[in-house]
Amino acid sequence: MNRTIGQGPWYLGIDGGGSKCRVVLVDTNDQVLGEGLGGPANPLRGMKVATDSIMTATLQAMAQAGLPEAYLSQLVVGAGLAGVNMPQYFKLVSEWQHPFAEFYLTSDLHTACIGAHQGRDGAVIIVGTGSCGLADVDGQVLDIGGHGFPYGDNGSGSWFGNQLVHHVLLHKDGIGAATLLTDLLCQDIGVSATLDIVSHFMHATPTVYAKYAPLVFAAAEQGDATALAIIERGAAHIEHIAQRLFSLNPPSLSFIGGLAYKVIPYLSPAVQARVREAHAAPEFGAVWFARAQQSKSQASTKERV
Amino acid sequence: MNRTIGQGPWYLGIDGGGSKCRVVLVDTNDQVLGEGLGGPANPLRGMKVATDSIMTATLQAMAQAGLPEAYLSQLVVGAGLAGVNMPQYFKLVSEWQHPFAEFYLTSDLHTACIGAHQGRDGAVIIVGTGSCGLADVDGQVLDIGGHGFPYGDNGSGSWFGNQLVHHVLLHKDGIGAATLLTDLLCQDIGVSATLDIVSHFMHATPTVYAKYAPLVFAAAEQGDATALAIIERGAAHIEHIAQRLFSLNPPSLSFIGGLAYKVIPYLSPAVQARVREAHAAPEFGAVWFARAQQSKSQASTKERV
Repeated sequence: MNRTIGQGPWYLGIDGGGSKCRVVLVDTNDQVLGEGLGGPANPLRGMKVATDSIMTATLQAMAQAGLPEAYLSQLVVGAGLAGVNMPQYFKLVSEWQHPFAEFYLTSDLHTACIGAHQGRDGAVIIVGTGSCGLADVDGQVLDIGGHGFPYGDNGSGSWFGNQLVHHVLLHKDGIGAATLLTDLLCQDIGVSATLDIVSHFMHATPTVYAKYAPLVFAAAEQGDATALAIIERGAAHIEHIAQRLFSLNPPSLSFIGGLAYKVIPYLSPAVQARVREAHAAPEFGAVWFARAQQSKSQASTKERV
Repeated sequence: MNRTIGQGPWYLGIDGGGSKCRVVLVDTNDQVLGEGLGGPANPLRGMKVATDSIMTATLQAMAQAGLPEAYLSQLVVGAGLAGVNMPQYFKLVSEWQHPFAEFYLTSDLHTACIGAHQGRDGAVIIVGTGSCGLADVDGQVLDIGGHGFPYGDNGSGSWFGNQLVHHVLLHKDGIGAATLLTDLLCQDIGVSATLDIVSHFMHATPTVYAKYAPLVFAAAEQGDATALAIIERGAAHIEHIAQRLFSLNPPSLSFIGGLAYKVIPYLSPAVQARVREAHAAPEFGAVWFARAQQSKSQASTKERV
């Protein structure tokens, strides 16, 4: 790791979701110097978990870039974190005694939108551990969903995983249709008795449920009617988010998140026709957010001088 | 509290659910000497919470009976607790260093069935914080549901409360129908901004959700279509439990739990026709369970002698 690391400033972009946290370390020309991956960075799951995840991913990216740990204090950081749309969590994270030069905070949905459309007008829908959407058009911002599991986040990984467990238990109890989901789940978790399945999920977090969401799509591909019905209900929710975002008439719509490209084929042709690939990943949106906020704050400093 | 308390033995019956715990203190002739009420007694919520709830309710019943606390060690106790159908929780509660003479443990569903049918064949469905059913016919026992929230317990208080919050947030986000539920909920919790509603329920337990279930029935009575649709889906699940229990052909079916009599009118005429009022409450079932277990253990002691 002794290659030339060039001159700062260095920008770190953080995309922190409910299951994992991705960071990218770039130079002033957006040249990628290093990347890192950590655990959940949603402060609702506890500030220690969130900041540990962020630091794990950050140090990994710095090591990859050959940037010594002492340079932490020189990084200009942008962070888009799930959960900080809630004022109390925004405040909590803002008060973090971070080790960076600067730390600019916003929601993961916001940085996803900035990344997807390079900061221009557009809409974005996240289908990951949670589900939510945002349109930013002519300075008007519309923010839908993302309220959390289990009362919200329909059509998300946590919702699909929970529906999977629900329908497997109905099958096991003899009050729901026989479904391939039962075999797939039991094979995956290595137990098959009802009470063992319940024990496995009794204290499950949204992240744990989300891990099993792909089984629903695997069963649907094999023609399982229960799985198909679950997907249709989940996709209907995502469709509603899209239709609502279209009320602002965004020039384009991008999807982000681990389940996005599994859900898109189940949306209406009208929505599918407006989907455009995201220009860049949310962690780059976080970098650009940091740079824009830094420029603003430097401009206002100059004004004051 | 100086009235004559008679001679022991005294029997204490405990019905411990996810939201509250009821106890009854009786003499050998089932004469009620005292009653008590405590918080949640489901060991899934923590053993300290469960045993505190049990002790609060027990001491209250003893005070009402005029039985000094020193008599705790003379009580013969039967407890039907939610959650102990799971072997690990049965073990945990069994290991409790209880202060009683004897402590006989089974599930709340079992004591509800014993109470409802005086220990004879029959079926019972609980619609309280959770939902489940049990049929006990010719020594064959069929146990359905009760797996916990959010992957199970459809049609229960926690499920109705969660559906309520879900549909209010859909309304607030402009992706669900306008519903009276929004006004009712906002009035009840004293906030109306979306993020404030989310904050209110962010870490809600099943018990908290269950508290708001009656609002769904209140809205339905005023003709709210969203509330009616929620109730129809919840009732369909309870109907499935009933139909499955009927496969054992139980001579009668009783309903127990705070929401039971709200849900029954939405069940099919075929199910409604077989509903009979429970003979006695689950806490009496717990008393009879204790007495039956005590007789068995005394009989086996005699055999050994």
